[in-house]
Amino acid sequence: MLMVFLSRPYSITPKRPLFIGILANTMLSTVPGLSGAGPNPMGSLLVPVLDAELIWQGIITSTDATPNTPTGCPTPASITRAVLDRIGVSPLFINAGLVHRPTVPVLDLLGQAGGDPRDGPAVPDAERLYKEGVRIGKLLSAHDLLVVGECVPGGTTTALCVLRSLGYDAKVSSASVTSPDSMKEEIYAAVTRRIGRSIPDPMDIIRETGDPMMAVAAGLADGFPGTLILAGGTQMLAVAAIIKALGNPLPEVVTTVYVRDDHAASCDKTAQDIGVPITYVDPGFGEIGHSGLVRYCIGEVKEGMGCGGAMMLAALLGYSPEEITRSIISFVSGYSP
Amino acid sequence: MLMVFLSRPYSITPKRPLFIGILANTMLSTVPGLSGAGPNPMGSLLVPVLDAELIWQGIITSTDATPNTPTGCPTPASITRAVLDRIGVSPLFINAGLVHRPTVPVLDLLGQAGGDPRDGPAVPDAERLYKEGVRIGKLLSAHDLLVVGECVPGGTTTALCVLRSLGYDAKVSSASVTSPDSMKEEIYAAVTRRIGRSIPDPMDIIRETGDPMMAVAAGLADGFPGTLILAGGTQMLAVAAIIKALGNPLPEVVTTVYVRDDHAASCDKTAQDIGVPITYVDPGFGEIGHSGLVRYCIGEVKEGMGCGGAMMLAALLGYSPEEITRSIISFVSGYSP
Repeated sequence: MLMVFLSRPYSITPKRPLFIGILANTMLSTVPGLSGAGPNPMGSLLVPVLDAELIWQGIITSTDATPNTPTGCPTPASITRAVLDRIGVSPLFINAGLVHRPTVPVLDLLGQAGGDPRDGPAVPDAERLYKEGVRIGKLLSAHDLLVVGECVPGGTTTALCVLRSLGYDAKVSSASVTSPDSMKEEIYAAVTRRIGRSIPDPMDIIRETGDPMMAVAAGLADGFPGTLILAGGTQMLAVAAIIKALGNPLPEVVTTVYVRDDHAASCDKTAQDIGVPITYVDPGFGEIGHSGLVRYCIGEVKEGMGCGGAMMLAALLGYSPEEITRSIISFVSGYSP
Repeated sequence: MLMVFLSRPYSITPKRPLFIGILANTMLSTVPGLSGAGPNPMGSLLVPVLDAELIWQGIITSTDATPNTPTGCPTPASITRAVLDRIGVSPLFINAGLVHRPTVPVLDLLGQAGGDPRDGPAVPDAERLYKEGVRIGKLLSAHDLLVVGECVPGGTTTALCVLRSLGYDAKVSSASVTSPDSMKEEIYAAVTRRIGRSIPDPMDIIRETGDPMMAVAAGLADGFPGTLILAGGTQMLAVAAIIKALGNPLPEVVTTVYVRDDHAASCDKTAQDIGVPITYVDPGFGEIGHSGLVRYCIGEVKEGMGCGGAMMLAALLGYSPEEITRSIISFVSGYSP
């Protein structure tokens, strides 16, 4: 196979890596039609809890949900679960602000779920969450590498608002084949009517129109002394943009080729505009003969719950592309055709 | 000063240590007269939350409580706070089962508060908590040393029940100058009337008459590959006894000389009976001229929230006894005469 698994050459071998999954809600995910996560708008709020449950346990037990989209496409949490289990890495979940209580072990930062930024400040305790993130980042300094994923349904819209407020002419990706771009633009327009187009302080931008994950991820990057890789698409580019605006050293970003190839989004251009190094993982889902996973190639799901970062971590630890994709096929075949 | 700070010679210098505080409740702390923690029996349930708040923030903000006993003796959490702050180590708190929600970042294992073992099984999900402890222990394997403290008001009585059920002729310590020994014996007698004197499986013993902290601490010891030191008095000896009964390698124990010198308890003898190495820390509170701390020497408080372990960790990291006690005096002088 001539497939290039990682888009950039990498020579580091992490000795003591940790995979983090930051869980949060934004009430934007309950706006009908905006988020592709969950069975329906209110159900989207439960997705971070179910994703964490799947990754920690290998199975969802608190509801009868299957980790597939309605079209039979395995969720990104399935990929993260399969890969982390294969490489023997237990994730550390962080609750940055959720509506529902998690069902598996989670480091609780006592944040509130993010509000609808059209109605008022979305993350009133952004500063506190950032500072807790800094402390947790220091606390984790025994690790040489942090791979930081996220699960925030509706989070590409907060990412759009944050990137635009920071001055980037960005377009964000989505978990849907057809991104509800005009809805996202309408929400950003409504936000600007409330807060204006330009806010100088990046912490104020998170507070007004971000989500709790962003504050925690930016804090982790500030406090952690080793290598930190933000694992996600345009949502993590928003975090990278915040980190830059704060004047802190830029981390790296990793996502999948499916986000890069989303022509409705500006992933690679925005990464360049920010100046953040970005790596694309290509697990070759088009050629592995799985009717669900192949849907990633037509633009469904694309990324989430740090699945690109989990695959990259496996590669850095010496697992071959074949081993990695085999572990994914094996896991998702347990519940999907 | 000729004081011997650590009772055993130590040559290890931890490179990547972590201090853990396991928080839990047992409903036994609400039995009037049994626990010396908190302002009153029901108030004892809040103590782990306030202790964690003090250690994380340096100040209690959610109530107007001062971290002193009614006689003006600084709580052990004050000592832990002072020392960890001095040596720059952030603690990781674990919620093993609490009545009240913590107010600072805590890794939530979704446990229930321990029940009264006279009425029924005290920790119905002991097995699950143990297994989560094992996973967290593995997750923390980047560290070379874990110092594991606890805060479980009423926990010396569950320790008595567990040690006796495991066949040890033990007497436990307490946070009071005069331990309510006869009450503890009456509770153990009532427990034996319910479950009998001999239960072969140590996990069943935790379930019937232990507390949630014990299950998690024993699991951590099983999962963590490095050096693990249980920081506490007779409560941690109960954990060590469980670990031995499970057939797992024994950790070490550290506590203060004030527990060793408690003639109502059998600390050193029970450690020998178990065969667990135990280190006693002597911070010399009798000679430092603080009217509150000197009360440790007459048997008040004695130990708690891993304060002996925090002081030992500081010594292992190269801090002198003078630096360590000076940091404690400085901190407690901020709120107490």
